[in-house]
Amino acid sequence: MKRAMIIAVIGGEDVSAEVSHLAEEVGRELARRGCTVVCGGGTGVMEGVCRGVRAEGGHTIGILPGHNAVESPPNDHVEFPIFTGLGFARNSMVALSGQAVIAIDGAYGTLSEIAYALIHEVPIVGLDTWDFSYHEHDADRIPRAKDAADAVEKAIAAARRRREP
Amino acid sequence: MKRAMIIAVIGGEDVSAEVSHLAEEVGRELARRGCTVVCGGGTGVMEGVCRGVRAEGGHTIGILPGHNAVESPPNDHVEFPIFTGLGFARNSMVALSGQAVIAIDGAYGTLSEIAYALIHEVPIVGLDTWDFSYHEHDADRIPRAKDAADAVEKAIAAARRRREP
Amino acid sequence: MKRAMIIAVIGGEDVSAEVSHLAEEVGRELARRGCTVVCGGGTGVMEGVCRGVRAEGGHTIGILPGHNAVESPPNDHVEFPIFTGLGFARNSMVALSGQAVIAIDGAYGTLSEIAYALIHEVPIVGLDTWDFSYHEHDADRIPRAKDAADAVEKAIAAARRRREP
Amino acid sequence: MKRAMIIAVIGGEDVSAEVSHLAEEVGRELARRGCTVVCGGGTGVMEGVCRGVRAEGGHTIGILPGHNAVESPPNDHVEFPIFTGLGFARNSMVALSGQAVIAIDGAYGTLSEIAYALIHEVPIVGLDTWDFSYHEHDADRIPRAKDAADAVEKAIAAARRRREP
Repeated sequence: MKRAMIIAVIGGEDVSAEVSHLAEEVGRELARRGCTVVCGGGTGVMEGVCRGVRAEGGHTIGILPGHNAVESPPNDHVEFPIFTGLGFARNSMVALSGQAVIAIDGAYGTLSEIAYALIHEVPIVGLDTWDFSYHEHDADRIPRAKDAADAVEKAIAAARRRREP
Repeated sequence: MKRAMIIAVIGGEDVSAEVSHLAEEVGRELARRGCTVVCGGGTGVMEGVCRGVRAEGGHTIGILPGHNAVESPPNDHVEFPIFTGLGFARNSMVALSGQAVIAIDGAYGTLSEIAYALIHEVPIVGLDTWDFSYHEHDADRIPRAKDAADAVEKAIAAARRRREP
Repeated sequence: MKRAMIIAVIGGEDVSAEVSHLAEEVGRELARRGCTVVCGGGTGVMEGVCRGVRAEGGHTIGILPGHNAVESPPNDHVEFPIFTGLGFARNSMVALSGQAVIAIDGAYGTLSEIAYALIHEVPIVGLDTWDFSYHEHDADRIPRAKDAADAVEKAIAAARRRREP
Repeated sequence: MKRAMIIAVIGGEDVSAEVSHLAEEVGRELARRGCTVVCGGGTGVMEGVCRGVRAEGGHTIGILPGHNAVESPPNDHVEFPIFTGLGFARNSMVALSGQAVIAIDGAYGTLSEIAYALIHEVPIVGLDTWDFSYHEHDADRIPRAKDAADAVEKAIAAARRRREP
């Protein structure tokens, strides 16, 4: 069986309509390109991206913090909910489960996920998200995308490079 | 979106041909009944059940111990691999992500997953697996199935009862 | 710095006065022998063993399921509380952090900890706890102790063997 | 039993002699003030702070990524090693186990720990560490200390405020 490429999309749970729309565009484009999306399964960016993916017939996986759907209701567009019971410690798994990561907006949870992508060398693309720096470690390590299509293009290209020898 | 029922299947990674065939039968029957399967994503029972599900056109999710496919290669029939980087601490997530659990055979990892299903009150059905007892806590709390079809029937019935008020 | 031997003690959180007293005896004996105790930090066996250790001047570490002392109040005899926010997924850490494990009584959480000790080959001694079996895997793999002093003696001997080449 | 205050110290594992000395100064001052230190148990900042604490007679707890001392050797000044087997997912636990956090230097692991302190509202003090910002979320939320004594003073004050009603 040939597996579809899986891209992780991370971002805030409480976002503006504009950011939600941007996430949906990212989801639509990922599905059109044949990708499955993994995310945290919640509201905001997570809901926007899942809505976009499903509208184009793609698959969505949500990795949730709680033990079950009562504790952590998945958004309506999560096809496959995974319940971890780990709280925000599940954030590292979201980053690890994508062949590349797209970060959109975000609060501190997103910052932790960006850090995990960098720790584990999962390629990451930023779309209007955190800036951070410390001496030699600077934000330039995260390529920035100018719009949804550009973010998807950069993420897919990075995921492909990762698989090649 | 109406979600498919998700059933967790747990069991040993190093099993006889007979147990592997039994797991495949469970997988085929689950897919025929419209269920998605979540498992640990590895060999043995996990591979058997995924093979069966995919042969009937169902979906399979593997929750793997390692950080990536080099550390933890998913079996060939895992459609959606989730990489946790948590080692065997990921076992609780497999049990939590099923609306019911079917245990087949198994070594100590399976014993830990049975314990987690019981801790979190996820309904569990045993098919030739561990016996355990301690005073008032006894093995009778796990209904036993007589064959693959019976295990699937009991698991689906238990998952449905769980969703009703 | 020479480190003290650390022994994990696992067991139920809701136990009889007799079991609580047994746990306290185990704690007293461990402290007299110079051991530090790690446990889940809660009530029942965990509280009993911590009380015993502290009464003899030993150190106690509690690895708790919640994010803080409001969510998971450590028992009064835990000197060093560690907050995980992982719920019962923290059980594997309790087993891993002992150089040997003593299991007393116990419900399903204890069963998961016994399974983790066996998975990771941490030596374990049972003192009135779970029986379990499955084909060639049987309860005889866990040596049984006849009283508190015997459990401590067997656990220390096993921890020493583990450190030798 | 009155428990000692526990302060988490986070920072890079591969640091300059100057940063290592700074961490040691923080450790000495924490121990003089009666605090226990929790950290990741490794090299660099973790080793420096543990050395300082032990030199002044304080207690040190190291929460390590591996399953045992072979996989994750604790530094020589860790009095109580806790083995998690969770890899870098153990980072959230380090932040949660301090009543306040002091961040010194650091790479991506430290960035993830800072994020977890902010997610869980554990007070954090920065001493020559990451800058980060995103719209309304900015680095000013982390008070900065000018030297070791100032970092310890600010961390203890923040931990005390947290305990008061």
